[in-house]
Amino acid sequence: MLLTLLTDFGTTDYFVGAMKGAILSVNPDARIVDITHDVPAHDVQAGAWTLLAACQSFPEGSVHVGVVDPGVGSSRRPILIVQRERFFVGPDNGLFSYLVDPEANPRVFHLTNERHFRHPVSATFHGRDIFAPVAAWLTRGVAPEEFGERVADYTRLDTLTPAKREEGVVEATIIHIDRFGNCVTNITRRDLSEKAEARGARLFVNKQEIHSFRRFFAEEWVAAASQSADELFAVWGSAGFLEIASFRRSAADLLKAKRGQTITLMVD
Amino acid sequence: MLLTLLTDFGTTDYFVGAMKGAILSVNPDARIVDITHDVPAHDVQAGAWTLLAACQSFPEGSVHVGVVDPGVGSSRRPILIVQRERFFVGPDNGLFSYLVDPEANPRVFHLTNERHFRHPVSATFHGRDIFAPVAAWLTRGVAPEEFGERVADYTRLDTLTPAKREEGVVEATIIHIDRFGNCVTNITRRDLSEKAEARGARLFVNKQEIHSFRRFFAEEWVAAASQSADELFAVWGSAGFLEIASFRRSAADLLKAKRGQTITLMVD
Amino acid sequence: MLLTLLTDFGTTDYFVGAMKGAILSVNPDARIVDITHDVPAHDVQAGAWTLLAACQSFPEGSVHVGVVDPGVGSSRRPILIVQRERFFVGPDNGLFSYLVDPEANPRVFHLTNERHFRHPVSATFHGRDIFAPVAAWLTRGVAPEEFGERVADYTRLDTLTPAKREEGVVEATIIHIDRFGNCVTNITRRDLSEKAEARGARLFVNKQEIHSFRRFFAEEWVAAASQSADELFAVWGSAGFLEIASFRRSAADLLKAKRGQTITLMVD
Repeated sequence: MLLTLLTDFGTTDYFVGAMKGAILSVNPDARIVDITHDVPAHDVQAGAWTLLAACQSFPEGSVHVGVVDPGVGSSRRPILIVQRERFFVGPDNGLFSYLVDPEANPRVFHLTNERHFRHPVSATFHGRDIFAPVAAWLTRGVAPEEFGERVADYTRLDTLTPAKREEGVVEATIIHIDRFGNCVTNITRRDLSEKAEARGARLFVNKQEIHSFRRFFAEEWVAAASQSADELFAVWGSAGFLEIASFRRSAADLLKAKRGQTITLMVD
Repeated sequence: MLLTLLTDFGTTDYFVGAMKGAILSVNPDARIVDITHDVPAHDVQAGAWTLLAACQSFPEGSVHVGVVDPGVGSSRRPILIVQRERFFVGPDNGLFSYLVDPEANPRVFHLTNERHFRHPVSATFHGRDIFAPVAAWLTRGVAPEEFGERVADYTRLDTLTPAKREEGVVEATIIHIDRFGNCVTNITRRDLSEKAEARGARLFVNKQEIHSFRRFFAEEWVAAASQSADELFAVWGSAGFLEIASFRRSAADLLKAKRGQTITLMVD
Repeated sequence: MLLTLLTDFGTTDYFVGAMKGAILSVNPDARIVDITHDVPAHDVQAGAWTLLAACQSFPEGSVHVGVVDPGVGSSRRPILIVQRERFFVGPDNGLFSYLVDPEANPRVFHLTNERHFRHPVSATFHGRDIFAPVAAWLTRGVAPEEFGERVADYTRLDTLTPAKREEGVVEATIIHIDRFGNCVTNITRRDLSEKAEARGARLFVNKQEIHSFRRFFAEEWVAAASQSADELFAVWGSAGFLEIASFRRSAADLLKAKRGQTITLMVD
């Protein structure tokens, strides 16, 4: 059974290795896949977004462990969320909330049964001592009810939906900047239909206007040698969000864009 | 069956996790090994060299996926190359060309059969939507012919052979600088035989002369306390190329050497 | 059978991939787990500490490969240490010495039987050519005696124990600074019992006094809004050592602390 890991532990320290040792001590046959360990330290929102983008590729039955956990040891609860045939294990701080669909009847369990923890349980490393072994026991078929009592609530981050949608104007946000400098916005096809895009749409970022909508990164370069090499364009990204990109250049650098900043979409 | 990954995606984003999810959705038993995801962005030549150096260690039957793909979505073809008992899956941009041996009758297939893709196929992330699932189906035993028609040509990078080889003089290039600052050249035993090396050889890099040829990095240090600590020397590297190194120091820093620059080998 | 890797190779080069290929060429069923490949280059002590902290989570029977090996190719011996049901494979330079317990009757073998090496054996990459295949053969059940003759001695690093322990004063060292800026000291419960801690203890680092002892990182923040956000405190870390931390801040930055520096613990 598949078990994925996402943390802000980096890969320089012993943390990730220790989590894997704890998992394999419980289930030597667990298949462990790293999503990333380079979530910016303590940045729950960034981790939540990366989980959203990555988890859609994994098969049903996967156990997804997420540890971005500045509140470790405090009263924030360790939880397990079961939704359809997926399992999310980590701190109750919103890390999984972009993935939780209230319509899908998610079941949330407060992890209190110490029988499935690693002992002694440290106050500073629940990744190794609680989340890793609980996830490993899940892959061995232990029923969710065994880990603790069911609870009704769980922490949710603010929704990814754009802040304002009025006639022809969407006030959106840059929610992620990837390694290539592409700026991922929170605009989806609900905010800009294919039809509306075909009629004409423009993005405004830091007073710059972007009016090209492309299908892929190299299109510009293939299509039109006359256009300037650093031209910015919008493209539907692989996670389902509209992105601002530039061929072989960092759009974020060209725009001096920052994660979290507001952008405007104007639809004709 | 073994499946290796090399990309320029970095490990901070969701890209690598998404590829692994796509692979395991097709074949939950695939054994995935990361070669590296830190190829410099869009640098096909660097990726090709790393593939060359790494793949020789893997057993026959391995499927090697490479994604350094600035042209994703454009008319550059997605391909599968079958050579002896090895499989290479990725964009047709030369990424595998250092590994392809025309004498070995490589067979090249244009990946067009969408039955083996992940759907919907995005225009920006063929790593997840084409290369990962195709490689996974290969590990499940699907025959190469099933993925698309055979084609006769494929893109090749310029050969790694030194630019000029005249009587006693080889004009060579630094093709890689590793994490320790060792400068890997494109000089092999074909350019400098053991016999010629024994007679005497010197390297010239940025007007500095290197005349020590050593067997291993610590040799200098072990052998001769009288020599200066930052002395540069040449050593036959583990990938089969001559390297310029310095014990516990970065030869690249000492030489202000850059990848791609010319160096000269003089044989006595 | 489980096989872990710790190196200073970084993840940008082909080194780690090549080691994994060499392992899987010998045992396609080996389960490989990365501890880290980002040990600072040539820093044996840092690697030894990370191994100490990580390996305690792994189950018996694990084979731990460590390669931080500036002396590769020289007369430093390649060794295998067998201790209880654990196996350590790497250079004889002290890398495993924090894990070796002389009371546990460790058996040390000098790896000389070339039958279990990868050929040709390079002079610069024993990670791929000696340590990886030997470890892989171990996971296939080859007996330790098969790899070479037993030897009596092995290289040990200076102990982690604090330099001085006098009545009420412990002269200790910062042995590691983690990704969050937490400063790990070499103080354990042998140096500061729960009872002594309850009576009162203070740490002195670069003339700053730290008198708060907390159970977890967020405690301060949860407990007392009146305290300044950047207050430093001591906390028992997950590897069993006392750490100096600050909630959501880098204690190392606040203290201008460096690994290897002396600190003082005063017990009332």
